[in-house]
Amino acid sequence: MTRVVETAKPTVALAIGDAAGIGPELAARLLVDPAVRTAADLLVVGDGRVLQRGAAVAGVVVGIPRVSRAEDISADGSVLLDLGHLDPDSIALGQAAAAGGRFALENFRTSLRLAAAGRVGAVCFTPFNKAAMRMADPAYTDEIGFVSSLLDVHTPASEFNILEGLWNARVTSHLPLSAVAGMITRDRVLHSIVLTHHSLLAAGIEQPRIAVAALNPHAGDGGNFGHEEQAEIGPAVADARAAGILADGPYPADTVYVRATKGAFDAVLSMYHDQGQIAMKLIGFDRGVTVLGGFPFPICTPSHGSAYDIAGKGIANPGASRAALLMAARMAARRANPATP
Amino acid sequence: MTRVVETAKPTVALAIGDAAGIGPELAARLLVDPAVRTAADLLVVGDGRVLQRGAAVAGVVVGIPRVSRAEDISADGSVLLDLGHLDPDSIALGQAAAAGGRFALENFRTSLRLAAAGRVGAVCFTPFNKAAMRMADPAYTDEIGFVSSLLDVHTPASEFNILEGLWNARVTSHLPLSAVAGMITRDRVLHSIVLTHHSLLAAGIEQPRIAVAALNPHAGDGGNFGHEEQAEIGPAVADARAAGILADGPYPADTVYVRATKGAFDAVLSMYHDQGQIAMKLIGFDRGVTVLGGFPFPICTPSHGSAYDIAGKGIANPGASRAALLMAARMAARRANPATP
Repeated sequence: MTRVVETAKPTVALAIGDAAGIGPELAARLLVDPAVRTAADLLVVGDGRVLQRGAAVAGVVVGIPRVSRAEDISADGSVLLDLGHLDPDSIALGQAAAAGGRFALENFRTSLRLAAAGRVGAVCFTPFNKAAMRMADPAYTDEIGFVSSLLDVHTPASEFNILEGLWNARVTSHLPLSAVAGMITRDRVLHSIVLTHHSLLAAGIEQPRIAVAALNPHAGDGGNFGHEEQAEIGPAVADARAAGILADGPYPADTVYVRATKGAFDAVLSMYHDQGQIAMKLIGFDRGVTVLGGFPFPICTPSHGSAYDIAGKGIANPGASRAALLMAARMAARRANPATP
Repeated sequence: MTRVVETAKPTVALAIGDAAGIGPELAARLLVDPAVRTAADLLVVGDGRVLQRGAAVAGVVVGIPRVSRAEDISADGSVLLDLGHLDPDSIALGQAAAAGGRFALENFRTSLRLAAAGRVGAVCFTPFNKAAMRMADPAYTDEIGFVSSLLDVHTPASEFNILEGLWNARVTSHLPLSAVAGMITRDRVLHSIVLTHHSLLAAGIEQPRIAVAALNPHAGDGGNFGHEEQAEIGPAVADARAAGILADGPYPADTVYVRATKGAFDAVLSMYHDQGQIAMKLIGFDRGVTVLGGFPFPICTPSHGSAYDIAGKGIANPGASRAALLMAARMAARRANPATP
């Protein structure tokens, strides 16, 4: 490897997630992972003692420089930004607690600020636990809301789930089902198609093929079971195509995922949360990667949760975390140089 | 095999489906299928010439007695009720036409009347084509509506999809998504649980374990994303349990199917069409069986369609039709003698 390539390596902030879950051990594993080391320098954000406990659980030895202030970070190689804010002995593994949630939130917040300041090219985080996040901050709803508020970004953002090359996107997310149909407007669907298009481009997928799911059974059956396909979704697909995007649909939701798993599309845009999640979880979502799209920099995380049931046992599979980190690295490299493969 | 067992065999009416699709060849294959012959006598309802063309396509020889009036059917063995109502030379394979739809509708109507009159213990049909059905009868919506109207049965009925031992049921079906939430009432959910319970019992599944899906993402997340789980679905599950039914839930829809495919439940009750269909089609729905439940006798069909693209090629897989016929035979045998295994 030449020096030229090394300096072209992106730096990815890796926020250690919930301290009571598998996040610390996954972070330790990523630090010694050869593919990760080749792809990116890591700026690990957390507490050195928590990381050490994670390393002990994972059975790996992590030896990286540590700094206590972002200003002290030198140019090259991976480093730990040790916030010194959590003694792991104060945390019971496998139990949601405010302290574990506060730890994850603070690591995430710091990482996002470093990315916003241009100190890192992307943010990755190991799993959060929603109950612990809410104990730490009762106003916490989800990652999208937290990032939007912190960065003061109020253009539409969206969560993408990626598994085996298939991206799933959503027009709506954490809403009552009764409120979904009213949100399916031509503008909103078009915006989601465009965001999906740009997110796939940002990940290096040329000319992404996007299938747009229908809202109603049998795609409305020609208007017999709902009109949104004709009035809103279809026109949005036409708008997107007129703009040069390879969007197609609306397709009946119960067959579009079958086609997508056979390789017919790079992405499916779902109209509501469960439409996509039922499919992705059956396909094997927990092995997948989640990307938060629509922000100024890439934010990636494994799709699975904090896995309290196996925390501290050293058996957590790092595959999805590795994939998330490599996705963040690739997207960061392409931000810096769009010709990056 | 003893005479006693032979006389205990149920008779199943087999209505030949759309004449332009794979229905005739599948009917011919079922007539020579050893497992089918062991399980049931068939009363095939259709046209002898169409069945002969199906046999020629399938490469099988069917030699069964034919009668032209139901009154002429003698006691034992399979027989063709030849309605003499369609010359196959007037039908182009692979094209939806009113004549093909009319043929399927008439066979189905006749079979249902024979079952209602107690002449057969169950009805099975090879695939219909919805477009052809509508050409034949513009008022045709779906099988449930047709059967309800013909039998004058107006208690709730439902379609069940069964694959690899997993049953999927629905509270609502062919409705706009915007109308779903308003239909999710405690009474309606309870009724669907009870119907599911009895349908599984009718198929010989003792103490069926029924998972009830939530309506909203994350099962409403404690009321943050919708209230139907707390106000309607949860109470209906409690009502069912109080009545001795092994119902559980409501469970988030995006994980309940993952659990069900691992054997945690015998059935999932979905709240709307695509919730169940997205899952079942990914699991492999086209290999499955559809049962219409809530009528005085069992009605079964393969879950796949009329497959116009392969009609007449002799390559249609009869597996789902065989499974549908065997399900109809088992349910008919249990109607006659609930101790049938």
